[in-house]
Amino acid sequence: MNEKIREIKGGVASAGGFAAAGVQAGIKYKNRKDMAMVYSKTPCRVAGTFTTNVVKAACVLWDREIVEESLHGESKVHAVVVNAGIANACTGSQGYDNCAKTARAAADALGIGEKEVLVASTGVIGMQLPVEKLKNGASRLASLLKEGEAAGTQAAQSIMTTDTYAKEAAVEFEIGGKTVTLGGMCKGSGMIHPNMCTMLAFLTTDLAISKELLAEALRENVEETFNMVSVDGDTSTNDTLLLLANGMAGNPEIREKNEEYDCFREALLILNTKLAKMLAGDGEGATALIEVQVDHADTKENARRLAKSVIGSSLTKAAIFGHDANWGRILCALGYAGVAFDPEKIAVSFGGSKETVLIFEDGVAADYSEETAASILSEPEVRILVDMKMGGESACAWGCDLTYDYVKINADYRS
Amino acid sequence: MNEKIREIKGGVASAGGFAAAGVQAGIKYKNRKDMAMVYSKTPCRVAGTFTTNVVKAACVLWDREIVEESLHGESKVHAVVVNAGIANACTGSQGYDNCAKTARAAADALGIGEKEVLVASTGVIGMQLPVEKLKNGASRLASLLKEGEAAGTQAAQSIMTTDTYAKEAAVEFEIGGKTVTLGGMCKGSGMIHPNMCTMLAFLTTDLAISKELLAEALRENVEETFNMVSVDGDTSTNDTLLLLANGMAGNPEIREKNEEYDCFREALLILNTKLAKMLAGDGEGATALIEVQVDHADTKENARRLAKSVIGSSLTKAAIFGHDANWGRILCALGYAGVAFDPEKIAVSFGGSKETVLIFEDGVAADYSEETAASILSEPEVRILVDMKMGGESACAWGCDLTYDYVKINADYRS
Repeated sequence: MNEKIREIKGGVASAGGFAAAGVQAGIKYKNRKDMAMVYSKTPCRVAGTFTTNVVKAACVLWDREIVEESLHGESKVHAVVVNAGIANACTGSQGYDNCAKTARAAADALGIGEKEVLVASTGVIGMQLPVEKLKNGASRLASLLKEGEAAGTQAAQSIMTTDTYAKEAAVEFEIGGKTVTLGGMCKGSGMIHPNMCTMLAFLTTDLAISKELLAEALRENVEETFNMVSVDGDTSTNDTLLLLANGMAGNPEIREKNEEYDCFREALLILNTKLAKMLAGDGEGATALIEVQVDHADTKENARRLAKSVIGSSLTKAAIFGHDANWGRILCALGYAGVAFDPEKIAVSFGGSKETVLIFEDGVAADYSEETAASILSEPEVRILVDMKMGGESACAWGCDLTYDYVKINADYRS
Repeated sequence: MNEKIREIKGGVASAGGFAAAGVQAGIKYKNRKDMAMVYSKTPCRVAGTFTTNVVKAACVLWDREIVEESLHGESKVHAVVVNAGIANACTGSQGYDNCAKTARAAADALGIGEKEVLVASTGVIGMQLPVEKLKNGASRLASLLKEGEAAGTQAAQSIMTTDTYAKEAAVEFEIGGKTVTLGGMCKGSGMIHPNMCTMLAFLTTDLAISKELLAEALRENVEETFNMVSVDGDTSTNDTLLLLANGMAGNPEIREKNEEYDCFREALLILNTKLAKMLAGDGEGATALIEVQVDHADTKENARRLAKSVIGSSLTKAAIFGHDANWGRILCALGYAGVAFDPEKIAVSFGGSKETVLIFEDGVAADYSEETAASILSEPEVRILVDMKMGGESACAWGCDLTYDYVKINADYRS
C-alpha cells in the first residue's frame, strides 16, 4: 500500500463539504430508517456506473441521464437521495414520474435544481413508491442536513435491506500538499451479481479532478472491485455506483495521468476493495466470506472469468457452508468457465488465517489432511487459491457461502 | 403428438435385443445398488454427446473416443457399464487406467471387445474407483444378463446418486410396417446445468438407421431437451448421453431425411422431453418442477437464452419454493439474459393445472389476485409463461425450486 494513503474511520460524509442523514420515512420497514440523503455544500463532478440489466429501475434511467450530461457538458450535481424497501423497477411511466417527484421534493427542500439530485432505490420490484412519504422524508432530511448533520453512518444504515450491518469506509491521502478524503457507503445482500457495479454504492471525495479522469478512474476500478462480487448470480435492475467530487480539498486539479492520479486510483482501489468485500461477506444468509484468487492465467479476462466462475458455483458455496473440502466442485467450476486449460497442470489450495494447504496438483488430489482443510473452511474468511501456471495475469473475486438462511430470506422476502 | 407414436411403460431394456441389470457393487452406498449394465445381443450404432466442461471425467474421454471412431469408421458397441458413488473425474492417468480396467472386466465377462464397452460414472470428484469391486460387479452383472434379465428399472435404480426415484421412459412407433421401441433411463439431481447433455442418460432403440442420421437426430434433439434443464447452474465433469441402436426391429434402414426419420425425431423428442422434465423436477431438494415457456421471441437462440436465464435464477427459484408471486425476479432474470427487448412490451403469466393468471403487462403489474397466484405456485408443476411479442420463436426450459434441502444435501454431500 502506498504510504501516502491511510485508512480512516468514516464514510460517505467524511470528505470536506459533504454531509449525510437518514430518517424513517415509513416506506416499508416498521422500526428502522429507510431513507437517506447525501449533500455537498458546493456542486460536484460526478461519475457513475449502472446495471447492464435490460430491465432498469426508473431511478437508474434518471441518474444515467444526469451523469451523461455532466460528463459531456458543464452541469454538476449537489445531492443524492436514496430509499430502501421499494426498488421502483417495473413500474412504467408512473414509476419515472415518482422518481422525478422525489428529486423535485429534495431539490425544493435543499434550494437546488431537480437535475442536481441523483436518486436511488432498492427493495421489492413492481410496487409504486409512496410519493407523499418520500416528499415528507426528503423535507426532514434536508432540515437535518441544514442543521449541520454529518451522519454518514446513519445514512449507511438507512439504505440497508437484508444487509445485517451498515457498510462504510474511508481513506485519506496527500495530493499537492493537501489532505484529500475519499469515503463511501454501500448496500448489497441479495440480487448481487453486478455487471457494472454493485447494487447501491455512493462515494464522495473532496479531491479536485477533471470529470473525464474521474469517470475513467471509476470505470477501470469497478472491473477490479464491485464487478468481482457475486452473491447469487442475479444481476439487479437497480445496480448503481456514484462517485461525487466537490474539489474542496483545494489541491491543484488533476488533469492528467500523473503520479497524483495514480495515488487517487490506488486510494479508490483500497476503498472499493474494502466495500466490495463487505458486500460479499454480508451476502444474504452468509456465514463466510469467500475469496477466490486466480494467479498465472494467460490473460486478465481469463483470470477474471475463472475467479468469477468459482465464486458463482452454488455447489462450491454449499460445500464451504458445510466446511467440506469438496475441491472437485472447484475444478468443475473452473472447467465450465469458458477458458481453455489443462487440468493436469493447475494447482488449487485453501488458505486460512494461519496456513495454506495444497489440495490439488498434477491432475489428482494432493496429500493433504482433511482435518486441516476442514479447519480452514471453518474460518469466517476462506481463500481459494488457483495457480493456472500459464502466464502472468491475476484476478480476485469475492462471494459467500450458500446457506439455509439464503433460501429462507428469499422464499418469503415480500412478506 | 404424431398418432403413430405411443408412450409405453418401460425403459432402457424395452427395445428388442436389449437387456439391463443392476447390482450392489459396494462402491459407496450401504444399502442399495450402485452399478448397472446395459447390453445388446447384436452390435449397435451409437451416438453420444458429452460435457463441454474443460475438466472431463476419465470415462467421458473413453466414451468420446469410441463414439467418434464409430461415427467415422465401422466399429460398433455392445454394452454400457455405469457406476454411482464415484465420478472418476480429476483422477489423472490412474483414473483413465481404472476406466479401461472396468471396460475390460465387462468385456471379458460378456465375451466382447473392450472397445465395445462404454463406461459412465457419477458421484464424488477426485476419488479413485475401487477397481476390484467394479470387476466383481461387472462379472455379476454379466451373469444376470446371460440369465436373460431385462431389468431396466433395476438398472435405472442403480445409477442414482441423490435422485429420489429411478427415471425411465419408453415410446413405441411404427416404421416400414415394423414396431420400433425407443426407451431410456437417466439420472440427475445435483451439478445439473448441461451444456451438451444431462449428467447421465442412456437410450436404446431397435430401430435400423444410418449412423450419421442417428448422430444428427440426437445432436439436434439435445438442444431442445436436456440442454434446457438447469438445477443449479453447475455443468458437470461427467455429463454423458448415449443412444444405442441395434436395428433389430427389422425396418428398412433409415438413410435419408424422410417421413420415417421425422417420426423417429418426434419419438425422440417425446422421450427426452419426458426424461428431461423428470430430471428437473427431481433436482436436489426440489419440491416443484418449474417450466419456463418463452413465446414470440425474435430468434430461437434468444428464446432459449431467456428461458434458461429465468430457470437459472436463484431468487426466482427461492420465491417459488416460498409460493411467493415475486414476479419482479422473473423480469430481472429476463433482463440479464443478454437479449435486447423492451420491458414495456412483454407479458408474463403463471400457469397451473387449472388456470393461467396474467401477472405483468405494459411495463407494470397486471391486476391479479395474489391468492390465485400463490395457489398456482403451490402446485407440484409451475409454469412461467413469457410472451416477448417480438417474433415467432419459442423455447421451453425446465428446472426446480431452491430449497433448504438443496443446501443441506450439498453442505455435506461427501459425508
